Amino acid sequence: MRSYNTEIISVGTELLLGHTTNTDARDISELLSQIGINVKYHTVVGDNPERLRNCVQIARDRADIIITTGGLGPTCDDLTKQVLAEAFGLKLVQNEEVVRWLYDYISNSRAFTPNNLTQAMLPEGCTVFHNHWGTAPGCAFQTEGKTVMMMPGPPVECVPMFRTYGLPYLRALSDEEIISHSVRIFGIGESRVDDMFADEMNAMTNPTMAPYAKECDCLLQITAKAASEAEAESMMEPVIAHVKERLGDYVYGMDVDCLEEAVFPLLKEKGMTFATAESCTGGEIAKRFTDIPGASSVFLGGAVVYTNDVKARLLGLDPSMIEEKGAVSHEVAKDLAEHVRALTGADIGIGVTGLAGPDGDGVHEVGTVFVSMAVEGRTYVRHLTLGPTRTRSFIRRMSGNHAYDMMRRWLTGLPVE
Amino acid sequence: MRSYNTEIISVGTELLLGHTTNTDARDISELLSQIGINVKYHTVVGDNPERLRNCVQIARDRADIIITTGGLGPTCDDLTKQVLAEAFGLKLVQNEEVVRWLYDYISNSRAFTPNNLTQAMLPEGCTVFHNHWGTAPGCAFQTEGKTVMMMPGPPVECVPMFRTYGLPYLRALSDEEIISHSVRIFGIGESRVDDMFADEMNAMTNPTMAPYAKECDCLLQITAKAASEAEAESMMEPVIAHVKERLGDYVYGMDVDCLEEAVFPLLKEKGMTFATAESCTGGEIAKRFTDIPGASSVFLGGAVVYTNDVKARLLGLDPSMIEEKGAVSHEVAKDLAEHVRALTGADIGIGVTGLAGPDGDGVHEVGTVFVSMAVEGRTYVRHLTLGPTRTRSFIRRMSGNHAYDMMRRWLTGLPVE
Repeated sequence: MRSYNTEIISVGTELLLGHTTNTDARDISELLSQIGINVKYHTVVGDNPERLRNCVQIARDRADIIITTGGLGPTCDDLTKQVLAEAFGLKLVQNEEVVRWLYDYISNSRAFTPNNLTQAMLPEGCTVFHNHWGTAPGCAFQTEGKTVMMMPGPPVECVPMFRTYGLPYLRALSDEEIISHSVRIFGIGESRVDDMFADEMNAMTNPTMAPYAKECDCLLQITAKAASEAEAESMMEPVIAHVKERLGDYVYGMDVDCLEEAVFPLLKEKGMTFATAESCTGGEIAKRFTDIPGASSVFLGGAVVYTNDVKARLLGLDPSMIEEKGAVSHEVAKDLAEHVRALTGADIGIGVTGLAGPDGDGVHEVGTVFVSMAVEGRTYVRHLTLGPTRTRSFIRRMSGNHAYDMMRRWLTGLPVE
Repeated sequence: MRSYNTEIISVGTELLLGHTTNTDARDISELLSQIGINVKYHTVVGDNPERLRNCVQIARDRADIIITTGGLGPTCDDLTKQVLAEAFGLKLVQNEEVVRWLYDYISNSRAFTPNNLTQAMLPEGCTVFHNHWGTAPGCAFQTEGKTVMMMPGPPVECVPMFRTYGLPYLRALSDEEIISHSVRIFGIGESRVDDMFADEMNAMTNPTMAPYAKECDCLLQITAKAASEAEAESMMEPVIAHVKERLGDYVYGMDVDCLEEAVFPLLKEKGMTFATAESCTGGEIAKRFTDIPGASSVFLGGAVVYTNDVKARLLGLDPSMIEEKGAVSHEVAKDLAEHVRALTGADIGIGVTGLAGPDGDGVHEVGTVFVSMAVEGRTYVRHLTLGPTRTRSFIRRMSGNHAYDMMRRWLTGLPVE
């Protein structure tokens, strides 16, 4: 496959004011990297036709694929469609299918105005992407050796539309299939993973392999090109097997986004439930798990016990023990997990107590955290020292990762502590 | 003040792979908008000298201020400094002060290598920004009518450095002071706020006023330019008073980031505490509050009660009542707030139960949420119907906002329901 350079142009003054974050460009980039299409530039420009025109001019000179996000729909006069169509010498024509969609969608809730019809004006000859998640349709066309694709701006519309229609459209540009897998790793850092595989990675051409750091874990991305998906998969198979063998139980999953996503199916498979008792993480572990739709099938609930008094009142911890050992201690962590397990009737109890900072307790350094797991008559405790230079957000997230990692290890028969 | 057009160039292949999000550009943009400096473009480019050179060339033609993030430090061969210095015809020279900082910082933890010295090579004549949050220093210089500023990439270094050194540097470019305030609004949408003030806003030149939508609330940003800060403030005073009067109790705070930030000082002032009992929000309300350092002075803790059984076990709700009324009901919300208040001894109890989706319960529509607050012998309940087209994340966040809004209203003597 020839290499397609891609530029993503995001249109929206709100991005330039810092009121919204450009997650569209990130999410599209991540999906493109998985099919081996290189993103070379992201550009953000405001709702201004002249400046957008200039950005499109620049993108034409340096990219083969131009993907825009935002600037569709009536509030911005369909800026992006106007400018892109004009830049490539195409007329906007009314698409009757889109008129029908819009009519069906809008007439359900409010009056259909002529204004809505502008959304049905699309570049002549383009492929239309139905917007099942909102109103403004997306589209794509090819001309002058370039591929142009326009996506709506709101992430809840842009990302599913890109996944459903945009990716297959771009994949079809090539006779070759490009397939990618990510091996997710927790427990060793990206730089150590890099050291382990540097020589091999440098010698590889197809498949390729590269390590990436995430906030509190890392991954190795393995990508192969072949005439068919099956062939690409079989080329990666020995590489993945080798990587998994060398990394051993640091590998927590394939093609998942986070540890909790890896734990969820393990719990479902075993028909087991868990509950949480959180001090320093303050609900973060529960919140992260309940971000997953359907979490209630394995997560029962738990307690956020920020003060010593509430540790006693809600979970029945012994106040004199807390006094004696200190709230940030092995013993309190152990009791948190055991008590929440007993109280909720969950199979697994998770406990966390520690110092997320910025203030310390005069005893331990900020970043000291005890993470515990009570299951089948035994309680495991990890003592973390994440270091006082870490942010509150890092310490809380990393503590959560350790809790999920302990569950993952126990559920797959690996040593936990 | 003349209008300075700004471009932010973020350097980092990880951004183009979608492995990290460009929060630096967002945060710098937001801070710049507060001092009235317009950001016209964001660009993201990989760790590649040639492509960065081209981006700098483009930025010179269209911006007065170029701010880079990332590409400093030894892992990328100080790419950004090399390219920017060269582009503006400056030599990199060793800065002795930086050598001393680096030596002090690095020798504490690990061996100082010649590699570290490259971080002390900076464009001749530049202003150096000490990195108190990491190692790679930032810098700024002015030449050929342009202002160039380089910031490190990691957000935990970039944002505090920009706030501490970058902003004052840029502010000093002008004789005028530009001051901005944001009036934060909850309870009516951005489009209604826009309608209310559209005529006035169009007629204003200094101060100016503009509405912006956030995920689950909105704001009016008011900005004034004057010879002094005091003058700018006094120009805005009547505008802010007028806005507050028209919006009334929809205004939840000035220059705060979210509702919980507005609630925190109100609780501290009154010496009151709260606790949470969360079903559909699954810990999100507790998590958000404990993101704030020092939260423990007013937040005691609470329960995440995802299943009916745990609602009974942890908080003592009557299982037959839950059965009869349904988990998503006014009565369960009321009991959640009252029970968690009684059990923890908090002054205020918050309860939430609802359907965050995507699956419904066969009775209520997704987006149905009951949010409750028990305080001083009375329990208030809001019945929300956020709508089934909303995402799980929106429904959870909005439910949390309502909980905080109810506390804010009660604490300031406003009607709650």
